[in-house]
Amino acid sequence: MNPARAPVPADVIERLKTAVGSAGYLDDPADIAPYCTSWRDNWVGRVPLVLRPQSTPEVAGIVGICAEAGIGVVPQGGNTGLTGAAQPHEDMSEVILSTSRLKRIRAIDTVNDTITVEAGAILKEIQNAADRADRLFPLSLGAEGSCQIGGNISTNAGGVQVLRYGNMRNLVLGLEVVLPDGSIWNGLRGLRKDNTGYDMKQLFIGAEGTLGIVTAAVLRLFPKPTASETAWIAVESPAAAVALLGLVRARLGDAVSAFELIRRSLIDFLLAGVPGHEDPMRAVHPWYVLMDVTSQGPPGSLHGPLAEALAAAQDSGFIRDALIAASGTQAAKLWKMRESLPEAVISAGGAIPHDISVPLSRIPEFIERADAAVAAAYPGIRHCAFGHVGDGNMHYNPVRPVDWDLPRFRAERERINRIVHDIVAGLGGSISAEHGIGRARLAELEHYKEPAELAMMHAVKRALDPKGIMNPGKVVRA
Amino acid sequence: MNPARAPVPADVIERLKTAVGSAGYLDDPADIAPYCTSWRDNWVGRVPLVLRPQSTPEVAGIVGICAEAGIGVVPQGGNTGLTGAAQPHEDMSEVILSTSRLKRIRAIDTVNDTITVEAGAILKEIQNAADRADRLFPLSLGAEGSCQIGGNISTNAGGVQVLRYGNMRNLVLGLEVVLPDGSIWNGLRGLRKDNTGYDMKQLFIGAEGTLGIVTAAVLRLFPKPTASETAWIAVESPAAAVALLGLVRARLGDAVSAFELIRRSLIDFLLAGVPGHEDPMRAVHPWYVLMDVTSQGPPGSLHGPLAEALAAAQDSGFIRDALIAASGTQAAKLWKMRESLPEAVISAGGAIPHDISVPLSRIPEFIERADAAVAAAYPGIRHCAFGHVGDGNMHYNPVRPVDWDLPRFRAERERINRIVHDIVAGLGGSISAEHGIGRARLAELEHYKEPAELAMMHAVKRALDPKGIMNPGKVVRA
Repeated sequence: MNPARAPVPADVIERLKTAVGSAGYLDDPADIAPYCTSWRDNWVGRVPLVLRPQSTPEVAGIVGICAEAGIGVVPQGGNTGLTGAAQPHEDMSEVILSTSRLKRIRAIDTVNDTITVEAGAILKEIQNAADRADRLFPLSLGAEGSCQIGGNISTNAGGVQVLRYGNMRNLVLGLEVVLPDGSIWNGLRGLRKDNTGYDMKQLFIGAEGTLGIVTAAVLRLFPKPTASETAWIAVESPAAAVALLGLVRARLGDAVSAFELIRRSLIDFLLAGVPGHEDPMRAVHPWYVLMDVTSQGPPGSLHGPLAEALAAAQDSGFIRDALIAASGTQAAKLWKMRESLPEAVISAGGAIPHDISVPLSRIPEFIERADAAVAAAYPGIRHCAFGHVGDGNMHYNPVRPVDWDLPRFRAERERINRIVHDIVAGLGGSISAEHGIGRARLAELEHYKEPAELAMMHAVKRALDPKGIMNPGKVVRA
Repeated sequence: MNPARAPVPADVIERLKTAVGSAGYLDDPADIAPYCTSWRDNWVGRVPLVLRPQSTPEVAGIVGICAEAGIGVVPQGGNTGLTGAAQPHEDMSEVILSTSRLKRIRAIDTVNDTITVEAGAILKEIQNAADRADRLFPLSLGAEGSCQIGGNISTNAGGVQVLRYGNMRNLVLGLEVVLPDGSIWNGLRGLRKDNTGYDMKQLFIGAEGTLGIVTAAVLRLFPKPTASETAWIAVESPAAAVALLGLVRARLGDAVSAFELIRRSLIDFLLAGVPGHEDPMRAVHPWYVLMDVTSQGPPGSLHGPLAEALAAAQDSGFIRDALIAASGTQAAKLWKMRESLPEAVISAGGAIPHDISVPLSRIPEFIERADAAVAAAYPGIRHCAFGHVGDGNMHYNPVRPVDWDLPRFRAERERINRIVHDIVAGLGGSISAEHGIGRARLAELEHYKEPAELAMMHAVKRALDPKGIMNPGKVVRA
């Protein structure tokens, strides 16, 4: 895809090693290999060196050397991404810069409700630090035990609480960034309001490391909810789920913190292929909603309002059946089901993933049209859709027909992408709601993005990274 | 400040007139004058032509002609700004482009909870349209009866509900923008999640028209709160107010939608100088908090939780006295007091305004140090501070000593700015929390902003507006 470039020269490698010291790099191919490989979708590359700086000045030193020598830098956090953004190319022309050792929690301010963390801090550890301070850091997603906050920022991560707390972008107040010339920008402000010129941090959020390397951030904290309920609700259709969301939002407002839609097929895949789960309901239903409501106030105080809302939804014909988890344990079991859905899809034989969003009002039409279109093109394809419907975001992952083998199905990836993404584009949607672009969606981005917007992205890339050394070939083509 | 440039050539004026037709421009100096003058702080300029396009293609046509001819374009909404961003320079080298006729509400989607509006729509009319659809558009500020949403977007407006709903930035899902080359970028997406590359709209939000002209936007709507209470609370000090906020947030969470701090001096100014107000409390107290709590649920349902929270705050020694408004009328009277504070300051003799923010935890220290510093430099200066303390944002506007005349005091503006802003900078704060930069704060911005960040701003300006025609000399110097 990119023209092959020359390998990193030996003298540059030596300078980089000197810059970080012997504990700061890996050059044994066996040690390097895990950094070059993605956990899904077979993104593999090769580099001569993985750098593991332990401070922001060390990051700046590395980038300065690479800028001078014109060497590409591939920033990497927890290596949990889904788009090939964190893996290098195969030509040995780049180095990987891992943020794993930049993992300090620098400060927590419970009056300002902020936490200052380094890029390599694990999401779960940030959640825990907030919890110990009686606060909530609301970003929550499947990889939270291993993903790093720098990666979450660089992909503008979403997850299950966006409905209430927004994307990662909404949780970032300030950034420290090593810029493509090796200088350090200290934008670690902990302010809710700051209108002093262009909000530069917004460019680095979601840039997947192509404009600089986020080394630290000031993040927002929230009061820790003290009341919480989880409901498992059977509905007839996506349209019924959307109507239900409108009803519960009108009654419970921002207390509705998560609202996930799950197609029945996924429950079948889960029960057949992943041990330890059981159907929460006796009868079989076509679709389910998993909903969390949380607020301040005494524990249990949301049970009544939630039960009333569900009763009203039943009266309105929006739901077929519903249960409210009787305990934290039962709620955790329901959420464990949700988190196991990607595994269930794999156990069913593999899928062509899509991470799309459309306006919430178009979700029913999207699912109906996409189902019809993929079934027409591939008789026997198995419908599969789940996701954060409260944000208009669905993981629409059709599963191979039972009589097809996986390689044959995988070969259809681009054609299936086009079928699904054409419908998304026609509905004013996004072909990458939360996973980003990396390399996996780059051609699709170029196909669907308006030329004026693509041109602006290129102009910004050239303006901030004129040598094109930051994560080359990701998000924007050089 | 900027070198004088040549006046707009006659042939360009003719082309611009032709582009919009006879109803689309003003060229009589008497008609033009109001567009060239600010309502506060005496920003005055001169232009040969005010353009009033009625469609996005007309805006594009105007900008295209100006780009070709290298003519500066000054975008203007409701002309309610406070930093001279919407007024032209004096050299007749620019034209004003007013968005007043771009005022349609294009669409409202109550399932997606979005409203699509043109730049010239008045904020109040957008609030009303949302209200009629049983939704809330939460941006609320003093000028809402005349400010236009395009200006709100271009200044990333704040106001009194940021604590709960965020700044304007948080309320924008999509933008339509006429770019500096006269092309139209249609980014009118109504998506909560979209990670397809750099989030270009973020650059235009808060850019004060220096990167392009926002012509339309997709905005977020929210469920309309059904329960609401307003409290007027006397506190000993800013520290007590901050402690009170922590307590009510822990108990009531996001229900706390507004939290304003008001120094006693402002109440004295108000009672002395603005008719129609009365002290809500019999005793005199040094500081007050005006707080709104809102949520879903039955009307009145927040009264109990609020009263309990205030009782707990009294037990903790955080408050001296408190009253909960007994009716909507009384709540409106309290808010009318808050909205009249700028008038009260003027009636007291005029002030040097500052629109600062610091981390909430540093608010008490900021006020203490700023009070001491300005009193030391100007004995007899009258302390005056009010604002959105829940966001760390204070309007810190010392009032002239009673025995000084206003011109003498105004002449000290830069020195007083420096005293206050040095303290703000030392506390990690912002010298412009919500009003923006325009021309009023440009020199201060250049003084305080980190060189790396200023350089990035300039790089972005050059990348997107290489000819420098968009609102020249505002935010970034050419």
